[in-house]
Amino acid sequence: MQLLNKTIKGIKKTDKLFNEKAQARLDNLTKPQGSLGRLEDLAKQVAVITGKEAPALKNKVIFTFAADHGIAESGVSAYPQAVTAQMVANFINGGAAINVLARHVGARVVIVDLGVASDLKAQAKLIIKKVGFGTKNMANGPAMKREEAVQAIENGIEIFEHEFRKGIDIAGIGDMGIGNTASSSAITAVITGLAVEDVTGRGTGIDDRSFASKIEVIKKAIALNKPDKGDALDILSKVGGFEIGGLAGVILAASSKRIPVVIDGFISGAAALVAYTLVPETKDYMIASHCSVEKGHKAILHYLGLSPILDLHLRLGEGTGSALGISLVEASIKILTEMATFSSAAVSERVAG
Amino acid sequence: MQLLNKTIKGIKKTDKLFNEKAQARLDNLTKPQGSLGRLEDLAKQVAVITGKEAPALKNKVIFTFAADHGIAESGVSAYPQAVTAQMVANFINGGAAINVLARHVGARVVIVDLGVASDLKAQAKLIIKKVGFGTKNMANGPAMKREEAVQAIENGIEIFEHEFRKGIDIAGIGDMGIGNTASSSAITAVITGLAVEDVTGRGTGIDDRSFASKIEVIKKAIALNKPDKGDALDILSKVGGFEIGGLAGVILAASSKRIPVVIDGFISGAAALVAYTLVPETKDYMIASHCSVEKGHKAILHYLGLSPILDLHLRLGEGTGSALGISLVEASIKILTEMATFSSAAVSERVAG
Repeated sequence: MQLLNKTIKGIKKTDKLFNEKAQARLDNLTKPQGSLGRLEDLAKQVAVITGKEAPALKNKVIFTFAADHGIAESGVSAYPQAVTAQMVANFINGGAAINVLARHVGARVVIVDLGVASDLKAQAKLIIKKVGFGTKNMANGPAMKREEAVQAIENGIEIFEHEFRKGIDIAGIGDMGIGNTASSSAITAVITGLAVEDVTGRGTGIDDRSFASKIEVIKKAIALNKPDKGDALDILSKVGGFEIGGLAGVILAASSKRIPVVIDGFISGAAALVAYTLVPETKDYMIASHCSVEKGHKAILHYLGLSPILDLHLRLGEGTGSALGISLVEASIKILTEMATFSSAAVSERVAG
Repeated sequence: MQLLNKTIKGIKKTDKLFNEKAQARLDNLTKPQGSLGRLEDLAKQVAVITGKEAPALKNKVIFTFAADHGIAESGVSAYPQAVTAQMVANFINGGAAINVLARHVGARVVIVDLGVASDLKAQAKLIIKKVGFGTKNMANGPAMKREEAVQAIENGIEIFEHEFRKGIDIAGIGDMGIGNTASSSAITAVITGLAVEDVTGRGTGIDDRSFASKIEVIKKAIALNKPDKGDALDILSKVGGFEIGGLAGVILAASSKRIPVVIDGFISGAAALVAYTLVPETKDYMIASHCSVEKGHKAILHYLGLSPILDLHLRLGEGTGSALGISLVEASIKILTEMATFSSAAVSERVAG
């Protein structure tokens, strides 16, 4: 709890003055004012977050956290639980979508076992920081103890801080965990106050019968555990997941270091809700990469007031949307820092009319 | 006219069989089926265009064509005409937005003077292929002769074919020309049949009075010249621009070589309308990168049935949207060709439910 409290205390309000400074810089570049739209907004947001008029985004790091969920035994996914561990192996071998997209945008992927249900072999490309061997089934009681919720978040903070010492200018987050859309729906329903039906989707692609059953199981978990909507640790412990807690920790740690953190889809969004409920100021450090097909994600973005950069109908997770989003944020910063000005390029400025 | 006719004859229907082949390949990769949404659609489209199950996008080339417009003297822009030539110099020196974004995505930019109103100095980074020193003012008569319209398109074809010999796997198009949104509005109104008011925006950012006057000038040009909506060469000669004709030529040439061509904003969209009116099959070779703030662009995308990848509120041109779009298309192809399959990665496939 000490690390969590210290991190929370380290999160400051962003300095809006840098919005004006970046705006002035952008307006002097050889293009009609505002003509690069959202790219200009992104550049200003990164200036505000970092407190730098001309930030550089050299080190791009995507945190992909994996863990298992007891709820998987209730048949909420189209895939068997073993897939979580198998996909971690795929991440290590570089064959998953997140590896391909991270390579494409020049980001490094930090793969972490926060609580996969089987023993994974320690190796160079995998950080093992298990809170447990998967959560318990939230349909029968709390997914984890309150201390474990704190531990999951603190593990995420420690992992971020370890990587931060190697260099991070922008972070992305992503997830892997069979059953974790069910947990994310529960978190989203509790925090936003929306009905479970309105924040639950088909995850990896379940049929109508499994979908109806998934909604019932989530409702049961909430009715049984009665999470306190104002207490993020209570929610995380009762209906959360280890990887979701860990990703919330990354958001808290990134915010405390003034590093922009790019949110992926629904599960990363649930982590953002947890971080925001703990510290509302974290919202200003978040950049929403895309709008997922999972309808609960739209509810999260609306609740947080975040406007996604992309809408590509993604629903994969792993940090895939974060990778694409990071590249667009990087493009925006290059616009801010590499373009010629009207005077340096000897281009006439606008005339009246 | 010979080169144009030959190119038109070389454009074939795409082979939809490659859609199924790419789909089968995608469905075997380690992700839930369809979970990468639009990225999967893009990968399939490129497979269909190229006729390759596993295409490679090594050489990315953006064609940025510049020309001047006689209509500029009617006060339709917020910038003086001299800016066209000044921005070409900026492109050559690498300081413009298109240079920054092309570097970011690893594309080379081909800068061409199709008809700037002043004499530009010949140099390594500039191709001079002028059809004239700017068009005539379409408010007083045809913008150019019919032979010049053919010449503009054929110049575009020649430039593409010259670069194609050096290597092009994917092309993007972009424009520079003070006054060219007025020309694009006129082309769009004539081809789509929509009212001038519904396809005219503020270009680089004109005030209310200039905006009202711009609409009147465009209406006058159409009423005076009476372009034939079924005859693309007639439209291009009466209300078009040299760079718009050249970009239509790039689209035709790319289609004839089965190379995907990424469309930028409103002016590139007007070029796409010209190419489509000449040869409807070109549409299948086009990928719309983004949806511009210029409302005429939305009308074009709707008319062509193209769905843009990005919506970033851009309104700059130069090929800036094409650059960002190319990177996403490239990402989609890397997904198709670099991801592990379920069997190669030993990941379990979906179970019932």
